[in-house]
Amino acid sequence: MPVPENAYYGIHSLRAMENFPITGTSIGTCRDLIVGLAAIKEAAAEANCELGCIDAVSKDAIVAACREIRGGALHDQFVVDPIQGGAGTSTNMNANEVIANRALEIMGFERGEYVRLHPNEHVNFGQSTNDVYPTALKLAALSAISRLLVSMANLRLAFDAKAQEFADVLKMGRTQLQDAVPMTLGQEFGTYALMLAEDEARLLEASGLIREINLGGTAIGTGIASHPRYAALVRERLSAIVDQDLITAPNLIEATQDCGAFVQLSGVLKRIAVKLSKVCNDLRLLSSGPRSGFNEINLPPRQAGSSIMPGKINPVIPEVVNQIAFEVIGNDMTITMAAEAGQLQLNAFEPIIFYSLERSLSHLTAGCETLERHCVRDITANRDLLRAQVERSIGIVTALNPHIGYQFATEVAVEAHSSGLNVYDIVLSRGLMTREHLDLVLCPAALTQPSSMLS
Amino acid sequence: MPVPENAYYGIHSLRAMENFPITGTSIGTCRDLIVGLAAIKEAAAEANCELGCIDAVSKDAIVAACREIRGGALHDQFVVDPIQGGAGTSTNMNANEVIANRALEIMGFERGEYVRLHPNEHVNFGQSTNDVYPTALKLAALSAISRLLVSMANLRLAFDAKAQEFADVLKMGRTQLQDAVPMTLGQEFGTYALMLAEDEARLLEASGLIREINLGGTAIGTGIASHPRYAALVRERLSAIVDQDLITAPNLIEATQDCGAFVQLSGVLKRIAVKLSKVCNDLRLLSSGPRSGFNEINLPPRQAGSSIMPGKINPVIPEVVNQIAFEVIGNDMTITMAAEAGQLQLNAFEPIIFYSLERSLSHLTAGCETLERHCVRDITANRDLLRAQVERSIGIVTALNPHIGYQFATEVAVEAHSSGLNVYDIVLSRGLMTREHLDLVLCPAALTQPSSMLS
Amino acid sequence: MPVPENAYYGIHSLRAMENFPITGTSIGTCRDLIVGLAAIKEAAAEANCELGCIDAVSKDAIVAACREIRGGALHDQFVVDPIQGGAGTSTNMNANEVIANRALEIMGFERGEYVRLHPNEHVNFGQSTNDVYPTALKLAALSAISRLLVSMANLRLAFDAKAQEFADVLKMGRTQLQDAVPMTLGQEFGTYALMLAEDEARLLEASGLIREINLGGTAIGTGIASHPRYAALVRERLSAIVDQDLITAPNLIEATQDCGAFVQLSGVLKRIAVKLSKVCNDLRLLSSGPRSGFNEINLPPRQAGSSIMPGKINPVIPEVVNQIAFEVIGNDMTITMAAEAGQLQLNAFEPIIFYSLERSLSHLTAGCETLERHCVRDITANRDLLRAQVERSIGIVTALNPHIGYQFATEVAVEAHSSGLNVYDIVLSRGLMTREHLDLVLCPAALTQPSSMLS
Amino acid sequence: MPVPENAYYGIHSLRAMENFPITGTSIGTCRDLIVGLAAIKEAAAEANCELGCIDAVSKDAIVAACREIRGGALHDQFVVDPIQGGAGTSTNMNANEVIANRALEIMGFERGEYVRLHPNEHVNFGQSTNDVYPTALKLAALSAISRLLVSMANLRLAFDAKAQEFADVLKMGRTQLQDAVPMTLGQEFGTYALMLAEDEARLLEASGLIREINLGGTAIGTGIASHPRYAALVRERLSAIVDQDLITAPNLIEATQDCGAFVQLSGVLKRIAVKLSKVCNDLRLLSSGPRSGFNEINLPPRQAGSSIMPGKINPVIPEVVNQIAFEVIGNDMTITMAAEAGQLQLNAFEPIIFYSLERSLSHLTAGCETLERHCVRDITANRDLLRAQVERSIGIVTALNPHIGYQFATEVAVEAHSSGLNVYDIVLSRGLMTREHLDLVLCPAALTQPSSMLS
Repeated sequence: MPVPENAYYGIHSLRAMENFPITGTSIGTCRDLIVGLAAIKEAAAEANCELGCIDAVSKDAIVAACREIRGGALHDQFVVDPIQGGAGTSTNMNANEVIANRALEIMGFERGEYVRLHPNEHVNFGQSTNDVYPTALKLAALSAISRLLVSMANLRLAFDAKAQEFADVLKMGRTQLQDAVPMTLGQEFGTYALMLAEDEARLLEASGLIREINLGGTAIGTGIASHPRYAALVRERLSAIVDQDLITAPNLIEATQDCGAFVQLSGVLKRIAVKLSKVCNDLRLLSSGPRSGFNEINLPPRQAGSSIMPGKINPVIPEVVNQIAFEVIGNDMTITMAAEAGQLQLNAFEPIIFYSLERSLSHLTAGCETLERHCVRDITANRDLLRAQVERSIGIVTALNPHIGYQFATEVAVEAHSSGLNVYDIVLSRGLMTREHLDLVLCPAALTQPSSMLS
Repeated sequence: MPVPENAYYGIHSLRAMENFPITGTSIGTCRDLIVGLAAIKEAAAEANCELGCIDAVSKDAIVAACREIRGGALHDQFVVDPIQGGAGTSTNMNANEVIANRALEIMGFERGEYVRLHPNEHVNFGQSTNDVYPTALKLAALSAISRLLVSMANLRLAFDAKAQEFADVLKMGRTQLQDAVPMTLGQEFGTYALMLAEDEARLLEASGLIREINLGGTAIGTGIASHPRYAALVRERLSAIVDQDLITAPNLIEATQDCGAFVQLSGVLKRIAVKLSKVCNDLRLLSSGPRSGFNEINLPPRQAGSSIMPGKINPVIPEVVNQIAFEVIGNDMTITMAAEAGQLQLNAFEPIIFYSLERSLSHLTAGCETLERHCVRDITANRDLLRAQVERSIGIVTALNPHIGYQFATEVAVEAHSSGLNVYDIVLSRGLMTREHLDLVLCPAALTQPSSMLS
Repeated sequence: MPVPENAYYGIHSLRAMENFPITGTSIGTCRDLIVGLAAIKEAAAEANCELGCIDAVSKDAIVAACREIRGGALHDQFVVDPIQGGAGTSTNMNANEVIANRALEIMGFERGEYVRLHPNEHVNFGQSTNDVYPTALKLAALSAISRLLVSMANLRLAFDAKAQEFADVLKMGRTQLQDAVPMTLGQEFGTYALMLAEDEARLLEASGLIREINLGGTAIGTGIASHPRYAALVRERLSAIVDQDLITAPNLIEATQDCGAFVQLSGVLKRIAVKLSKVCNDLRLLSSGPRSGFNEINLPPRQAGSSIMPGKINPVIPEVVNQIAFEVIGNDMTITMAAEAGQLQLNAFEPIIFYSLERSLSHLTAGCETLERHCVRDITANRDLLRAQVERSIGIVTALNPHIGYQFATEVAVEAHSSGLNVYDIVLSRGLMTREHLDLVLCPAALTQPSSMLS
Repeated sequence: MPVPENAYYGIHSLRAMENFPITGTSIGTCRDLIVGLAAIKEAAAEANCELGCIDAVSKDAIVAACREIRGGALHDQFVVDPIQGGAGTSTNMNANEVIANRALEIMGFERGEYVRLHPNEHVNFGQSTNDVYPTALKLAALSAISRLLVSMANLRLAFDAKAQEFADVLKMGRTQLQDAVPMTLGQEFGTYALMLAEDEARLLEASGLIREINLGGTAIGTGIASHPRYAALVRERLSAIVDQDLITAPNLIEATQDCGAFVQLSGVLKRIAVKLSKVCNDLRLLSSGPRSGFNEINLPPRQAGSSIMPGKINPVIPEVVNQIAFEVIGNDMTITMAAEAGQLQLNAFEPIIFYSLERSLSHLTAGCETLERHCVRDITANRDLLRAQVERSIGIVTALNPHIGYQFATEVAVEAHSSGLNVYDIVLSRGLMTREHLDLVLCPAALTQPSSMLS
């Protein structure tokens, strides 16, 4: 099995390509991961050189190669499939080979002259896939989390703006899809903003766990074949390179076998998905119609809704976000099973964990962006219809509870339902309250907050 | 650890009670399982006696004890927790002990005189937990499947009756919650009946797999410690006792380690849950309102909807069915994980598989029953509102496609949407079709089927 | 439909019993929930009385009835099914009826004389199911979390004790089930203790979100029909009664429709389940055998392992914990789906959320307890076998990497594998290192930590 | 927003690209889907021409364009994201535009001269996304199922070959990871072949449901805007083009809204995943070691196992299959949620259903292929070790049950366990059986089947 003439990867990568022809893609398409790997190899070369474990010439060449890769070079040389057996060894080997071969060129040698600089003995010195790979996954995840946080914040701001815009739009609130009591459309949109804010907080919390790395643990966390001061030094160098405040796990054996941080992160992404999906369900429901639905709000038309029904407009943006949510929830199941399947000193299934996590993060980011740009910011309200619904609603009878009691209020509601009359008129005709009193209790401002009449 | 004076169970059951205090319940509450166990022990005693492996006196006593248990006796002596380690050994041991002790009494001995008749040497002769337990689970599942099929059929008939009743009620169909094109309410309810019919067919299909048992395989499927003709004979006797056409698996080693039949059954239950949930979502949506919702149909009021909102009525029956569906989908995940975790010659996690499956089956049965009795059969339609919505809909413009083309039809739809006018009037005012032609195309019968005008 | 003579519950509970015959159990079996409901009603009565909304006589009777229930009385009167439609209304109605009827008795009236004291107008004053029910669920969850934390801490301490006991037991670490490099059995058990410690931290974190309640929001969070100072006052009273530092959510509309805290909690329980399952998988693997397995450790024998294989002992305690883990993961899926299905101002599916959460919490608690008491604390190690495996392992060649390089080390490993010889002898015979050097590198202490020889 | 000069797609595709920038890929990468779409458009053009709904010149051009696409042309013009809102409308519009523009060229016109031949009025005549899109998904699924069936059959044959090869290799069977009773390695591998055979049968069964299409139902299944004979005719033409025996669903309204066939198919894929994962877990367990594990079989070495541990070989092929299984199980959850979320006359979430299903099918196919080629066919057995383990096992005592009883057999087992002696010697020294009798009972052939000594 010959390595292609112009390849920077080597025999280990080639074997992995043959063994894992699963997805038709390669790890090189995940920029964050390749940059993370190069950062780790750069930090390791620096630390090992300072500790006297590799020579300065080798170190300089490795560092130079890594910087090129971090700058975007040679990503097409990362050829192994993201879904792979071997707990990420093929990914690490691929990185070692590409970096070694590029470093050899920089040193003035031919690619493949491993006696000069060896993928395992120099680039991988004091390292194992079992500490390099999860650390690279975490660096990649941190980058993706940052982007998601930005898109969530933008979406939140868009909902906040709508909450301000609709602050005075009175409407019927609903529980269990049945008319309940009044609220404002601004209050409704304000909840969406707040849900996002809370999820941003949870995501930040979970990203704290991702900052904890096991670099220096080598094969199983005992640090075998590494210098005693290496773990501390490489963390310091790596933190500087990636500009993140990384932490070395207090117990590297535990950190090497434990996928808890990924499970927690995925759990939070699932929570975000659940809430985004709920919000999108609401948007689709509130904009249902136009003539045989709720018709409370209008989503901006984005594209023809149908190839056969002329003029139909569909809520396509919320619909795509719903689907991303379902995907994220499925990914969480995959991650859960992969995490549970870890055995003894290692979880061999981190490749599928990252493959799933990476898509959850990037698709959620894209979903929040399109929801903000192509939907939320241009939503409008059908104010007249909304107010009319409050006025003819039966639910406002709830506001009378403290004044006429649940029993009498129920009788009013039942009459309104069967006769089609308004609550207002029924209460007056039954002589249950005076018009003045009733007007005070049913004034719009009073209906959307606790009953000041009680105090 | 002393066994209570009046207990029929013995030391093995007692140890299991101490080891597994998980749910606070016992296997004795699952009537189908206990009856299934007793049927197996009865059939085994008969087969082993005929094969000369146990004596006739022991056999007669065991058979008598088993028949009492099948008749409802001693279920309170089945004391071990349904969630248990040991692959069901505690359940089998519990059965062996209770049956042996009751048989001893019948023979005129004291409970515990195992030298006369031994739980393992007589009651369990030629058997292992690993063939008895899954066979008992399958017998119990078959009983539960029968009940579910009945309740699904009743629900289907209720939907069918509504489909007839609403056959002439014209309404707007919707895609993506947006007004689409006309249909009848009868067509809508007819789909629910058909969905159920299809699911009944899938369930029957899956129950076929459940009829395949591994009795006779003993410990790992090789049949060690059983008579060569035992497997065939015990299947024959058991089939007669439970009045089911049971099949002995062609490869008992495979059958002993494989949980595929349970996974398939749970997959079908999940499919039923998905569709029932969709139907209930529809019912809740169509009955939303009463004044600020779709308000197309009325679910029968079943209870006060709110402790604070007088007169509110909620779709409580569909809501409980939705929740059962979510539970069934979660149970399927539990079963999936348990099935995947089997190792080598046995799956040790069948107790949780059955625990989950049993609840899926019984809760789905209860859900279909309450949906049929307390909801579907008393649904009414708001016919006038439904017809009015069709008349003022924009969606009927789709019927004009073959006559004026998608392009012109789109222009009509856009004008209707912006002006609030009717499609009918716009087409005439634009001179796109004659009134006679238009009346033919838009007559109700024409709108809910292919366009006979084209032929 | 007549209410039984001696019942404390009323017509609303009775209707719910007829509508929801799902599980065969009732909410009264969940002590935490009933106590939580009674605490809320007591706090509400006090707050409403202080605010002048209900009279002191009614308040006193309600408070007295609630205290009896908190003390354990009348739980059998809480008769509705835990899986119910109506978003918990039946549970709240059941509580209102039982408390009203008992309070009526205390006041010297007959049960049912609601003109004296009314379930909705007095007991439920200023409340809605939509704030009472989720608050009660949270109180119940807090109690269950406390118990789980205790059982996790005990299990952690048991693992810690074993880590100390086995601190000097050298063994082979494994990655991907293949022999890797040495470690101590103490290090291995230490990771299990640390995993639990981290999960305890996550659980505490999640329980913080559970402390946030929406009491005072009433129907949809606007606080309609409640006194403006009620939310603050009832929180204060309730915190005192249940001795918890409860927080009123900053936005009650958002808090009323959002199930995020339950999703987060369930996500953490899933994480705990994933790790407990992994630990139990390890324990089962390490104790496999006795003659054809790993045979590294011995779990205490707890019960006869087989009804047919004499003398067989099985890892029944880890097996039951595995199954609980699968159940918790399935429950998380149920909760996820139920949370996603919330619509507009309310999630109607909180009953199934709590039903699932409650079982996850209680079964995990039971699982940790039985794992600690009946397994971990009595585990023993096969020390001689473990040490022998290290000595004849190939994996120790990894320690030679920094001294002879990956390339030469690979050749040694290959020879060891094909010849069956020891690494030690091969290195010497090849003259790759001196015996003195080799002894230093391969001494037990050196093998389980970074290579001090490098510094 | 201008369409690029040389594009065959049009404005609707362009808008979709802007709205759904989710995955970074396009539907054009799924060859099966594009070919399926083209086949449908070709069949529809033929049927509509025969029914007099479109002219022969347009038909000929459309058919020619579709045949080019089916032959592999223009797939890069299918530019919309596979994850899209709008229920697949963008995919259908993309197809209509590309086909119309290519047909216009064939007719000698410019791309975009839609007055000559219109994407919606000609290419899409009598069609809706709601019948075209799911039909295309089903055609694509049928192709993918065929490939999966081939790879499963090959894997099954490989296991069968091993079952033959290992037919005489005696070994210890295990339950719950504890030594149980003897079997042959051939029996063990035979179960894997049979599991696959059963799953192939289930997959074939599920693919039957996929053959049922809703073409002709148009918008919601009523067939509006299509010719009354169109549904039958287009099915006939399409069946011929794709060489599949397609069936028109008996109720097109039901078929248009129901995703049950996809749920069933995914459920079967999940079942396949569960069993493949179990088999791979077994292979990894049986090959664990080499010196501190089960070491029963040897998987062929495929690549260096570690970047730091020289000579280490890992079970990388089973590991990648495990991960695919976890992914398939996650995808099933995504599909379940998407199916459940369908509303009224349509499920808008079919894009994510197909996206998930397509990956499940193709990754499972790749997994079976690599497992067959790179692992199973080169597995070898450590015959001597396996036989030795049987000889010194305690588990063979089970074979003595029918001869000395469970009670005495237990005493023998206990002595064997504590003393380390062999069962054989203990039975003789206790005088429980004669040597001749014992030799008959314990001969290898007798140990792996029912006890002929009993008959």
